[in-house]
Amino acid sequence: MKVFVGVDGGGTKTEAIAVDGTGKKIGEVNSGPTNPNATPYWKESLRSISQQLALPEKTNVRIFAGISGAGTSETREELIEAFRELFSAEIEVEPDPLNILYGGLYGSAGIVQICGTGSITYGVNEKGDYGRIGGWGYLLGDRGSGYEIGRRGLLASIESEEGLGFPTVITEYIYNKFRGKDCREILQKIYSSTAPKELVSPLSKIVIRAAEEGDKVALNILYEEALMVCSYIFRLEKELFAFKKQPVILAGGVLSTSNPFQLMVKNELDRKGISTFLPEHTPVEGALIGAVRKENGIIKKNVLAAIGGRIWGPQLED
Amino acid sequence: MKVFVGVDGGGTKTEAIAVDGTGKKIGEVNSGPTNPNATPYWKESLRSISQQLALPEKTNVRIFAGISGAGTSETREELIEAFRELFSAEIEVEPDPLNILYGGLYGSAGIVQICGTGSITYGVNEKGDYGRIGGWGYLLGDRGSGYEIGRRGLLASIESEEGLGFPTVITEYIYNKFRGKDCREILQKIYSSTAPKELVSPLSKIVIRAAEEGDKVALNILYEEALMVCSYIFRLEKELFAFKKQPVILAGGVLSTSNPFQLMVKNELDRKGISTFLPEHTPVEGALIGAVRKENGIIKKNVLAAIGGRIWGPQLED
Repeated sequence: MKVFVGVDGGGTKTEAIAVDGTGKKIGEVNSGPTNPNATPYWKESLRSISQQLALPEKTNVRIFAGISGAGTSETREELIEAFRELFSAEIEVEPDPLNILYGGLYGSAGIVQICGTGSITYGVNEKGDYGRIGGWGYLLGDRGSGYEIGRRGLLASIESEEGLGFPTVITEYIYNKFRGKDCREILQKIYSSTAPKELVSPLSKIVIRAAEEGDKVALNILYEEALMVCSYIFRLEKELFAFKKQPVILAGGVLSTSNPFQLMVKNELDRKGISTFLPEHTPVEGALIGAVRKENGIIKKNVLAAIGGRIWGPQLED
Repeated sequence: MKVFVGVDGGGTKTEAIAVDGTGKKIGEVNSGPTNPNATPYWKESLRSISQQLALPEKTNVRIFAGISGAGTSETREELIEAFRELFSAEIEVEPDPLNILYGGLYGSAGIVQICGTGSITYGVNEKGDYGRIGGWGYLLGDRGSGYEIGRRGLLASIESEEGLGFPTVITEYIYNKFRGKDCREILQKIYSSTAPKELVSPLSKIVIRAAEEGDKVALNILYEEALMVCSYIFRLEKELFAFKKQPVILAGGVLSTSNPFQLMVKNELDRKGISTFLPEHTPVEGALIGAVRKENGIIKKNVLAAIGGRIWGPQLED
């Protein structure tokens, strides 16, 4: 019997689920990081998944692995080869945003907008063409990301302290967080930490809180970032779908909870007739859907039932 | 006899010069980093300076030390205390931009604009009040810095590659520099390096070269950064000098050479009646001027003659 395996691989951990053709779950395992840019031990993490799943020899397997860092064809080839040494299977490796797309849209065409620590706009059309915008990381400032929102909040509070900008409650909240009374002092704390960028992204929560309280500086930061995110979505819609409206899945820590930033993005998309959804499934379940989808291009309800969640999407069959 | 010591302390090295009251040079030494944020061994570097200078006991010494990282009063106190353990002297410690200010203006009031890897606007008025804007480092994006110009060049080339911006020759120059044919691939190279930020700042040279060839995207980046830098200068002029026009010293790798960015800054300042100069002296010579200046508040020509350079400035006396 055919076995489907979904893999969600990241820079700190990797998850995998396996189901058989009737939808029965036959394994659910965890392992270390599999992003080849994040660790030299990614092959060991893959081996651990193979050992834990312990699929019987000669099993007919289909794997879909959405893995962070699989952005270039070179890296994808390397990952596919490593999978081949461990599984006798049909293998597809793609960047991890596709897991979320499949977890939200069950294999139908659409766009996913992720705003977590970083951000990326990812889409796939009915022909299976992929496209993406953003995901450039903290150095270049991923628009709408927690990092960028936090960075701009910190900058606004320093500028206001130095008489360059409008007063904002962000300043006070940052003082409280870092137990400091001067932004220069706080900046020094951030730069002298071993991972300054990891201190910046959580500041997005402060900006969101300030915006919830009506702080104009915070609202302006969120609004500008929301507009940029939406402009990326419109751009991808044009590129992949020739302007035909597509559902957009919202994901990531900053965008998947109800807050002013999410509302701004939703409103702006709504104004253009674009509907938004939160994904019903976890990323690893999305990867599994990715694997099942490849079989005849359709997803069977009994398979989906095994992984739970509301069933939605035009391509479902009994 | 009184001895004057100037110290220019940075994150990688420190220089010191000592002259006597007649202007005779009695020592010129080098040592390791003295920026307390950059190294735990900064006290060792100071000790090495004291040992190399080997001033006779009971010498009456005045020290001016401009040290990077001395941005908070806490750090300055720590540095002063460390100097006190090594020298029986009158000691002044300030952030290192003051060395350049003194090296350019001989102790008279004014503003220094530094655009190197980072950027900062620093000024001192006739009452001796200091002020500064910027110098927030790469995370917050120092306007007009090599880092920020390079970062924006990289971003522009990626956006243009992904259909979001105007075409620019920057893209081709970045391909050549990193031997890549795709910005995603190049980004991966930058992020996987041990010091990604050190790869970004040198890209400013590419942006400047593109601007010299008339590239509109590059010209626009430089113009926006130049305007921001000038707005900081105007702001400091208002704060420290109540809008009275002051000479501005231009310094740092990006701003001290003849290029379109320097021209834009000069033109914008010139339009507002502000004259610009390049410093005649090195930073460590500027620190020495800082030490000498404190004596009676004036600088004697014979002392300046010892450190060379054109003599300029309203406070000079024979």
